[in-house]
Amino acid sequence: MDFAPSPRSAELTERVRTFMRDEIAPVEPAVHQEIVRRREAGEDRWTPSPVIGELKARARAAGLWNLFLPVEHAGRYAADFGTDGGEGLSNVDYAPIAEAMGSSMLAPLVFNCNAPDTGNMEVLLRYGSDEQRARWLEPLLAGEIRSAFCMTEPEVASSDATNMAATAVLDGDDVIINGTKWFSTGVGNPECRILIFMGVTDPTADRHARHTMVLVPIDTPGVRVDRLLTTMGYHDEPLGHGEVSFDDVRVPASNIILGPGRANEIAQGRLGPGRVHHCMRAIGLAERALELGVRRALERTAFGRPLAKLGGNSERIADARIAINRSRLLVLHAAWLLDQGLTSGRAERRGMSSGRAERRGISAAAVSAVSEIKVEVPNMALDVIDLAIQLHGGAGLTDDFPLAAAWVGARSLRLADGPDEVHRGVVARIELGKYRNGGHR
Amino acid sequence: MDFAPSPRSAELTERVRTFMRDEIAPVEPAVHQEIVRRREAGEDRWTPSPVIGELKARARAAGLWNLFLPVEHAGRYAADFGTDGGEGLSNVDYAPIAEAMGSSMLAPLVFNCNAPDTGNMEVLLRYGSDEQRARWLEPLLAGEIRSAFCMTEPEVASSDATNMAATAVLDGDDVIINGTKWFSTGVGNPECRILIFMGVTDPTADRHARHTMVLVPIDTPGVRVDRLLTTMGYHDEPLGHGEVSFDDVRVPASNIILGPGRANEIAQGRLGPGRVHHCMRAIGLAERALELGVRRALERTAFGRPLAKLGGNSERIADARIAINRSRLLVLHAAWLLDQGLTSGRAERRGMSSGRAERRGISAAAVSAVSEIKVEVPNMALDVIDLAIQLHGGAGLTDDFPLAAAWVGARSLRLADGPDEVHRGVVARIELGKYRNGGHR
Amino acid sequence: MDFAPSPRSAELTERVRTFMRDEIAPVEPAVHQEIVRRREAGEDRWTPSPVIGELKARARAAGLWNLFLPVEHAGRYAADFGTDGGEGLSNVDYAPIAEAMGSSMLAPLVFNCNAPDTGNMEVLLRYGSDEQRARWLEPLLAGEIRSAFCMTEPEVASSDATNMAATAVLDGDDVIINGTKWFSTGVGNPECRILIFMGVTDPTADRHARHTMVLVPIDTPGVRVDRLLTTMGYHDEPLGHGEVSFDDVRVPASNIILGPGRANEIAQGRLGPGRVHHCMRAIGLAERALELGVRRALERTAFGRPLAKLGGNSERIADARIAINRSRLLVLHAAWLLDQGLTSGRAERRGMSSGRAERRGISAAAVSAVSEIKVEVPNMALDVIDLAIQLHGGAGLTDDFPLAAAWVGARSLRLADGPDEVHRGVVARIELGKYRNGGHR
Amino acid sequence: MDFAPSPRSAELTERVRTFMRDEIAPVEPAVHQEIVRRREAGEDRWTPSPVIGELKARARAAGLWNLFLPVEHAGRYAADFGTDGGEGLSNVDYAPIAEAMGSSMLAPLVFNCNAPDTGNMEVLLRYGSDEQRARWLEPLLAGEIRSAFCMTEPEVASSDATNMAATAVLDGDDVIINGTKWFSTGVGNPECRILIFMGVTDPTADRHARHTMVLVPIDTPGVRVDRLLTTMGYHDEPLGHGEVSFDDVRVPASNIILGPGRANEIAQGRLGPGRVHHCMRAIGLAERALELGVRRALERTAFGRPLAKLGGNSERIADARIAINRSRLLVLHAAWLLDQGLTSGRAERRGMSSGRAERRGISAAAVSAVSEIKVEVPNMALDVIDLAIQLHGGAGLTDDFPLAAAWVGARSLRLADGPDEVHRGVVARIELGKYRNGGHR
Repeated sequence: MDFAPSPRSAELTERVRTFMRDEIAPVEPAVHQEIVRRREAGEDRWTPSPVIGELKARARAAGLWNLFLPVEHAGRYAADFGTDGGEGLSNVDYAPIAEAMGSSMLAPLVFNCNAPDTGNMEVLLRYGSDEQRARWLEPLLAGEIRSAFCMTEPEVASSDATNMAATAVLDGDDVIINGTKWFSTGVGNPECRILIFMGVTDPTADRHARHTMVLVPIDTPGVRVDRLLTTMGYHDEPLGHGEVSFDDVRVPASNIILGPGRANEIAQGRLGPGRVHHCMRAIGLAERALELGVRRALERTAFGRPLAKLGGNSERIADARIAINRSRLLVLHAAWLLDQGLTSGRAERRGMSSGRAERRGISAAAVSAVSEIKVEVPNMALDVIDLAIQLHGGAGLTDDFPLAAAWVGARSLRLADGPDEVHRGVVARIELGKYRNGGHR
Repeated sequence: MDFAPSPRSAELTERVRTFMRDEIAPVEPAVHQEIVRRREAGEDRWTPSPVIGELKARARAAGLWNLFLPVEHAGRYAADFGTDGGEGLSNVDYAPIAEAMGSSMLAPLVFNCNAPDTGNMEVLLRYGSDEQRARWLEPLLAGEIRSAFCMTEPEVASSDATNMAATAVLDGDDVIINGTKWFSTGVGNPECRILIFMGVTDPTADRHARHTMVLVPIDTPGVRVDRLLTTMGYHDEPLGHGEVSFDDVRVPASNIILGPGRANEIAQGRLGPGRVHHCMRAIGLAERALELGVRRALERTAFGRPLAKLGGNSERIADARIAINRSRLLVLHAAWLLDQGLTSGRAERRGMSSGRAERRGISAAAVSAVSEIKVEVPNMALDVIDLAIQLHGGAGLTDDFPLAAAWVGARSLRLADGPDEVHRGVVARIELGKYRNGGHR
Repeated sequence: MDFAPSPRSAELTERVRTFMRDEIAPVEPAVHQEIVRRREAGEDRWTPSPVIGELKARARAAGLWNLFLPVEHAGRYAADFGTDGGEGLSNVDYAPIAEAMGSSMLAPLVFNCNAPDTGNMEVLLRYGSDEQRARWLEPLLAGEIRSAFCMTEPEVASSDATNMAATAVLDGDDVIINGTKWFSTGVGNPECRILIFMGVTDPTADRHARHTMVLVPIDTPGVRVDRLLTTMGYHDEPLGHGEVSFDDVRVPASNIILGPGRANEIAQGRLGPGRVHHCMRAIGLAERALELGVRRALERTAFGRPLAKLGGNSERIADARIAINRSRLLVLHAAWLLDQGLTSGRAERRGMSSGRAERRGISAAAVSAVSEIKVEVPNMALDVIDLAIQLHGGAGLTDDFPLAAAWVGARSLRLADGPDEVHRGVVARIELGKYRNGGHR
Repeated sequence: MDFAPSPRSAELTERVRTFMRDEIAPVEPAVHQEIVRRREAGEDRWTPSPVIGELKARARAAGLWNLFLPVEHAGRYAADFGTDGGEGLSNVDYAPIAEAMGSSMLAPLVFNCNAPDTGNMEVLLRYGSDEQRARWLEPLLAGEIRSAFCMTEPEVASSDATNMAATAVLDGDDVIINGTKWFSTGVGNPECRILIFMGVTDPTADRHARHTMVLVPIDTPGVRVDRLLTTMGYHDEPLGHGEVSFDDVRVPASNIILGPGRANEIAQGRLGPGRVHHCMRAIGLAERALELGVRRALERTAFGRPLAKLGGNSERIADARIAINRSRLLVLHAAWLLDQGLTSGRAERRGMSSGRAERRGISAAAVSAVSEIKVEVPNMALDVIDLAIQLHGGAGLTDDFPLAAAWVGARSLRLADGPDEVHRGVVARIELGKYRNGGHR
């Protein structure tokens, strides 16, 4: 057992941290305040700040680009699109890098490692045709365009995919798309050019074979971004969460990914590592919040002592430290478990529903672990950020500090990619399964 | 012991609920959505909707106006300014009415019972000179103008009043005011005309005799609303939380309330009932959230069952019911304890700091009770609203439902009027005091 | 709304507290230590200390006897068996008295107000025949004998009564009893003479009409106390929790209470007020624990300060105070709701299952309230007692202080009379029922 | 980063688990029930069951003996006293073995790996003179005698060592010992022959140089075991927690360990790995409890479904799984951090107080990590065991299942080796220290 990161991971993490400290940190507050100013003034705040473009160019030049690329799929893209060393990273090697990036709202964009683009790029990498990759993956890897993922719907509980109402019906060489999607993150941004849409193709098929994923250029006739949703008052500019309607949208059947009825496979393959990334970034966010909270608690005084010395504050700070540390280890372990499956040549087995994954031999421990961190980490981050807000007093609620937005981001994660309750259900099912029929572990 | 409300309280509560159901509920969503629309469009959303003005007129005509007026101070104002029955209400009689109003963002404004105006009116009622009352209290009671309270400051931990940096210095017949205040709720609204400013007059005086409260018309030269703060992304239109700077602002010394160095007395007298009102409204908010959550949990289905039947949802709903009920009783009891002091002719003793209050015989139980609810209720409301959000899925985070804004409102209450930690300190001090020196309860 | 106790309640509470302070407190530690000593030495610790007998005589002489007697059923027994004033008390009037008694392990025994005897006496009072009352109720009221209640069984989840396996089969003028019961509290005590046994009479009847309650003298052939169970290491001497087997036990059919198949009615009538009593005593226990914890925190010093001033201790003490206060109010309110049903001449409706109760008009609010306190109070008491233990250091775990035993008693209450989860289910069912079919509250 | 155990650790863990399944599990319930029977009957239950002696012999023969021996100190003892492979284990290699043992009350005794003997043996191994080792360490390693550690005192808050009242005064070639110690675990056992006593030698010395540790044979005149304490009703036979008085006890000065005034060094060196062992065993205990709880939840039915399917039970089981997994990783990481210090030749630096350790270069991360697990793990275990008890209903409180005793054991750990609050203080101090003086991490 060895808790030390690999030399490559350690070195990249250090370089990312240095870049963030030297290049991003000095300009981030201004970028953020400019968005706030525009929001207040009713000006456009969706067009990304030119500062982001400049930072992206510098990050790419520094070889700190597309670090999310998974080692088993990166192939030539790692070399062509700037990943340092010319190959991808395992989940456990990427994890500390994602944590570092997560402490900043800007960094994931700068390093071309932000959701949902990373997940969409992974989909194309793993399941896209050569044509699809050439047309969409390469400009995404180059950071020239952005993408969105259109899955959940406003009218139904989307945690149960069988509730999905939107359709993707084959019609000769085309596929016709109808329905309304929401929480399509990224569609606010004018650089967003391509949507991955998921809809029902054959409602009579097996539960896992009904849905299809289709690439839909955002400028296809019939596609309309109806509005941009707030999450607790925030728009998450410059990405935005859109409600998008599809009204008899017609695209060539060659835009279907992997094949009709195979959306479920893709969704599962997309979500596992994506959840690990989300969780690692959330840990970085919690670390940043704790740092801000502790600094404030040392600087501000009341009743003659720094806040850090008053009442239960120091014990709460200790609990936050414990909570972050244990969550980080849980995520690293989940990343490692995912890697174990992959490095044993079982890559082809990913892309199944959790039940099927287990039936076909993928580690139930890995399936459980991903759901475990999905429950654990956002809740942990919320507690830590809330403490930091409280230590800031009223200021913690304002946009003078990144804490309020951080809290909202972490809160969203308790619902995005499946609510806590669904993930607890997965963990429980696997736990109960160990003992069913009187079985032994 | 009798948990039934008095007939007058029950009847007024019922009439308020009926008015809200028949007059406010049908228009509230549109008022809210119009603010959201204007916010998105960068249009003015501070000028209150004309609908609010119409509802105010109807509420006043119905005798449901200024119901917050405290029975021991209402005097002729109750008769002149529309309180039904011509007299004020005790805290325990007003409590269920405040709860009813709290379930709506609009209702407190409509019934002229919103913070901070109620607190400011109470200050003038109790401590204002005849001239001050004629000039400022009467238009406030008439709902013609609004007011703000300028106490906390951005540069210091304001939970410790000795940290306060702003000054109110006597200069002949004038008082000269300098400093920066923030979280001055209401200054966004163009109807806001008068500020109650608190500043240091004599830094060498006893800790409880340093500060002075002064009435400052908002259009006095040197007063500037520098910006309107967000709380977790929300501006709370049409009131707003302002950062206000005072730069050599000069007003007549007759604008001082009660006298130089007496701000502390006023602040304490203002905050007790105000905290009870806040807490009762927060209970109304929690009830509304639970109702929305339960309805959603019954309507939406996943995996073949309504959400209400899945996993731990029903147990969480039960816990929310228990939490609301116990919090409500705690607030009602605190209101009753406050009333006990008042109805025993000890009114003159109010207006002291908690320590002095106790030394001079005001019930430590009442002092503790107000701090107890200040800790208990906002935290309870946050838990209940969070559950309701979770039951709504992603929709719960949007402004399609009032839950996100409700959560933010409750979160602010953990800091407004003193953070949790300070109130726990008050409760602890009183609890420890029972046993000090080997004493018996 | 009036939170002041009635004069009679206040006066009796004060007299009980005085008696406890003057008569019980001075001898309680010795009684307790003697039980510990005998336990260690392997001597008999089931025969009650003669001190208890003397205290009982003095309590009865002081008119502080059988105060649990419910006003609507006390009848002549209140006068004959010592209740001061010659009549019973409402639930809300008895509640503060039960709280006072709950702070001592001995007091409930001394005042003849301990479980399960109070519940058993209530059963006989409400449902017993004249003959049954003369033979068993009168000596119980006189404190001459004790009783036990035999309901739960080791082999099944007893929270679902349909799981019950023990039988009570009619055979001519007799009833024949078979089965194994456990957690039959009181059978360790040699004064225990009568058991109330519950078993299946007609397994084909409606779910609510299958079971029968029968009075079984403990010396009937075939009755055997197989062992006395520990709860977390404690035997709760001098009562004890027995596992009791019934092997072809034959008693006359006149020993059936109310009639065959009517056990469910009786159980429900027995449990409502019983749960209120349990909860009030638990609040007294929590108060006692908090007092001990605070005193210890003031007396012991570490790192130069009393424990009360270290870290989060004072905030935790504040939270404990808040928790006790809100729980007490919740129980008082539940007691008041029960009284409302009773004082409206709806006494005949008690004795139904919660579902049937509601169908026939008994307040769902009261049914919910009793389940709410059953969840709330033991958990609250556990938290407070645990804090007190922690403040005592290792000593808190020993029998030098009553805290360890208090914790175990409160822990048992999370299972006795139905586990938390079942009561949350009742609360949730009623809450969901308010909105089903789109209904309004 | 590699989460796989080393081959040697994995192999030994597997062999320990197999031995436990085949040799210990079949007899453990009977050993336990015999202790319960004797306790009830007032018979001797301190003399260990002969079964334990037989199992010890078999464990030693199997090479599963003294596995706790630390690799850097094991020396020849590993070869002479049965550790398989002839050398000791690192903390991270021993951790999974300790977890395995922790699931049984008997296993640590059987494998000669139980507290406090392991800690005492480590003290002698690291700090004992050759003579001390020959006389006391060797029979301890052989499992022929037992030992106790006499540190905490009944009259003071022992978490602050400066409170200590007992004395160890040099008198010529002797040292004279006086005072009262308690929670001296192991003194109930007739095999206990040697005590490690800690007392004040020079009250005027620096805080860290006042205390001395002395080896005191239990049969030395003046040593008396005054009583055996219960922890929540349990005696933890066959070890027992003793209150021990020392009345002018005289032993040769050669019985002093390391030297006068050096107790603090020894205590710190003893406690670090000891806390890791305690925590790993507690994780094994929690795993065992969860297994029992899940099995029960699958077997018992109520309302027509297994308990596992009712209400929030499955979500609680998921939360327990998450909690155990994250705690285990936190402990493994702490063990690894300890090993890092040791394997870098910094062994000589152990044995300092945490503050001095840091000043001299030992990783603050390791000091914090040990305190983090000391807070995290017992609390986690309590929650999991409590859930398992609740799923068992009343049975969970009895001694028919090991859950009640397990809960009490975990509860004791929140106080043993320093209460939670003290350890939170250590974690907070290190966290705050990162940012003091505006410093960066």
